Amino acid sequence: METKGVHFILELSGCDPDIINNLEQVRKILTEAAIRANAEILQVVFHKFSPQGISGVVVISESHLSVHTWPEHSYAALDIYTCGLDTKPQKACEYIINSFRAKDVFITTLSRGEFENGLYKHKLSQKEVHKGEDKIEKLDVVS
Amino acid sequence: METKGVHFILELSGCDPDIINNLEQVRKILTEAAIRANAEILQVVFHKFSPQGISGVVVISESHLSVHTWPEHSYAALDIYTCGLDTKPQKACEYIINSFRAKDVFITTLSRGEFENGLYKHKLSQKEVHKGEDKIEKLDVVS
Repeated sequence: METKGVHFILELSGCDPDIINNLEQVRKILTEAAIRANAEILQVVFHKFSPQGISGVVVISESHLSVHTWPEHSYAALDIYTCGLDTKPQKACEYIINSFRAKDVFITTLSRGEFENGLYKHKLSQKEVHKGEDKIEKLDVVS
Repeated sequence: METKGVHFILELSGCDPDIINNLEQVRKILTEAAIRANAEILQVVFHKFSPQGISGVVVISESHLSVHTWPEHSYAALDIYTCGLDTKPQKACEYIINSFRAKDVFITTLSRGEFENGLYKHKLSQKEVHKGEDKIEKLDVVS
C-alpha cells in the first residue's frame, strides 16, 4: 500500500453548540462523512463528556476521522486522514463543516509519508475560510 | 475545559518491521504510551491488514493517539493529541519512538485551538531527529 496520506487538520469556529453537543448527531455526521469520502468504516467510537463535549473517532481502512468538540466555545477540532487514491477526504470536510454550521474554518493540509532523502516527512499548506452562514460547496485546498 | 491541545504529528522511518506488523505489540505499545502520558483511556481499537500493516486508535479523555504502519517500508505515521495540563504527550512520543526502534523522526507540533482575532487556529513548529540505533531520552520539542 502507498505510504502517502492526506491529513486535513481543521479548527471549526462558530459551530452550532446544540449540534456539537449531541452524541447521536455528531456520530451520525462523522459516519456519513466517512461514507461520502468513499472510505470503508472499520469501527466507530464516540464518547460524551460531562457537563458537555463529544470525542469520537471513525476508524477506516484508509486511516481515521476524529473530532473533539467544545460546545461552550462553539468550537470543534477535526482530523480527517485518508490514504489511497479512491478516497475523497475533501467531501468529508465539506460535509462536516456544513453540518456543524461552522462560520470560520482554519485548515492545515498535511501530505504525509512523503519519502525524501531516505526518510519519511510531511509537507503542508494552510488556508482560512470565512463562510459565515453560507454553505461551502467546494473547499478547494491543496493536498 | 480549555480548548487548547497539543498535537504531535510524527513520521517514523526505519522502524523494526516485525514490531510494527504485530497487532498485539503495537496495541500494547500504544496503550502503555497513553498511560505514560498520564491520559485516561476510554477505548482501544486496533486492526491488522492483509497482507500487512496495522491501524489503531487509543481514544483518551484528553483526545487520542493513532498509528498507521507500513511494515514493508519500515514506516509508521503517528498522531498524539492531548488536551489539559496534566498530560505528558512527549513521554508517549518518546516511548513509541523507542519501542518501534525508529531511526529517524520527522515531527510537526501543532498547538490546537488557539483563539486569535475571534476564531480558532493552530500554530506549528517542526523538527527532525536522527537517532539511529540510540534511544531517545528527551524529545525536546516546543509545544
